Amino acid sequence: MKQIRVCVVGYGNVGREAVECVRQAPDMELAAVVEVLDVDCPYAPVVRNVDSLENVDVAVLAVPSRVVPKVAPEYLAKGINTVDGYDIHGDSTLSLRRQLDECAEQSGATAIIGAGWDPGTDSIIRMLFSAIAPHGITYTNFGPGMSMGHSCAVRDIPGVKDGVSFTLPVGYGQHNRDVYVELDDPARFDEIARAIKEDPYFVHDNTRVTMVEDVDQLKVMGHGVLIERMGASGTAHNQRLELKMALSNPSATAQVMVCAARASMRLKPGCYVLAEIPPIDLLPGDRESLIRSFV
Amino acid sequence: MKQIRVCVVGYGNVGREAVECVRQAPDMELAAVVEVLDVDCPYAPVVRNVDSLENVDVAVLAVPSRVVPKVAPEYLAKGINTVDGYDIHGDSTLSLRRQLDECAEQSGATAIIGAGWDPGTDSIIRMLFSAIAPHGITYTNFGPGMSMGHSCAVRDIPGVKDGVSFTLPVGYGQHNRDVYVELDDPARFDEIARAIKEDPYFVHDNTRVTMVEDVDQLKVMGHGVLIERMGASGTAHNQRLELKMALSNPSATAQVMVCAARASMRLKPGCYVLAEIPPIDLLPGDRESLIRSFV
Repeated sequence: MKQIRVCVVGYGNVGREAVECVRQAPDMELAAVVEVLDVDCPYAPVVRNVDSLENVDVAVLAVPSRVVPKVAPEYLAKGINTVDGYDIHGDSTLSLRRQLDECAEQSGATAIIGAGWDPGTDSIIRMLFSAIAPHGITYTNFGPGMSMGHSCAVRDIPGVKDGVSFTLPVGYGQHNRDVYVELDDPARFDEIARAIKEDPYFVHDNTRVTMVEDVDQLKVMGHGVLIERMGASGTAHNQRLELKMALSNPSATAQVMVCAARASMRLKPGCYVLAEIPPIDLLPGDRESLIRSFV
Repeated sequence: MKQIRVCVVGYGNVGREAVECVRQAPDMELAAVVEVLDVDCPYAPVVRNVDSLENVDVAVLAVPSRVVPKVAPEYLAKGINTVDGYDIHGDSTLSLRRQLDECAEQSGATAIIGAGWDPGTDSIIRMLFSAIAPHGITYTNFGPGMSMGHSCAVRDIPGVKDGVSFTLPVGYGQHNRDVYVELDDPARFDEIARAIKEDPYFVHDNTRVTMVEDVDQLKVMGHGVLIERMGASGTAHNQRLELKMALSNPSATAQVMVCAARASMRLKPGCYVLAEIPPIDLLPGDRESLIRSFV
């Protein structure tokens, strides 16, 4: 069986996990790691950019969401499929999908965007819940867990030496923010706490800011989600559906992206969100065996 | 927008709910109900068989699993897509898929099999759980709820006037059976209880048989499932995933079939299990709006 040749772009928390997921996949081989920083990967050559790649089927883009619209087209132009964990919901996802759809069509490649656990598998769950019970409300509750975007926003506030923001579920789709900061000048705490609470990332949420001596000690990659729906199907109005996950965040994100890399090999050229592809294609093995095992 | 014209085949518990689901769907109209028994449906003509149908896009087969292999080909031969809730797992599903694939290819129609909540949406959940955490074990726990197959087996035992069997989850994929019987001759209870426990449907399970005066009073359509997985993704070995649903069974089954009827309109000719189709196609509306709402 021909192995799918995968490169992992970015070698941070998610990239390192993606390397591990590719190594464990029975149908893949790790072609390269693409990283501009000086890093060492024991399992594949590390190259600086896309130009040095040869004979690669899929690129797993383990890079921040904001750079995906710039990075993905470089790979698609070379005919390499891309998979990313783009996590800016709503219109940004739609415009990325249109942009990459055009790139992918031109080169005959495929792009799967938002292929993590949320957006990604959670998006599929929300759709399945609506299919089972079309009338009703779905609540998605995140955490407790570190929010990368919010933590970066905290660290961007002048005077913050290190900082981290946790997302705490209050219930029924509401969330509080729990921010921990290490300051250059502890006397400035009140002023900095106010600046954090007024930041666009926090201004609409109930936010608590606490000063600590060592932020690093608080960092943990665990995260979670609870998706709840009470809905109606036909004449039945008490359908209760619930998904609960407690995950190591970068590992789960990387794993879903790597599964999407597999699925990308079976699609017609174009750009897709995860919910637009058959779930069975995420898994290795032939269809009949998968149906026997899972259906 | 052209409405999808749907007929519902069978007018039992599931068929009646399917009629309600079609009526509530914004993109469908109920073309007919097909039923050999004398029934009255206030919303569409009731016809005896497939020959009386005209201008129908999809048939929702709300019939027992064992008759699906006979009934589905009649509709496919007329170029009508079919959707069923075939629930015999494993090799039976595979051979039905091969059989209907051939019929569907010949007429240019599509068939979606096993399109209920289990098999069906639960099958997709099991696949997603394995995609997020490829190493690990998934446990599917059913109930408490009535098992149609087991209840029929009880009623087939001579001397049983009426009977019902509940599936009780013990945990980690194990189940007990809780059987209630109404007897013509109460003195024969011990003998009949033994016959039930020795029946192929019950012989491998821990089964309790209780005699009651009125089985009908115990019948309830509620059912449930708990799917649990502890798995590993990349280097993370403590990924916890859980789906819990408490459902009115025929309503949920009918609703998923009706959603699959919608999806059947977007597929190439052939036969599919639910996990082989993009989840987004189960829902009404255009793709971009759905992505904005669910992703």
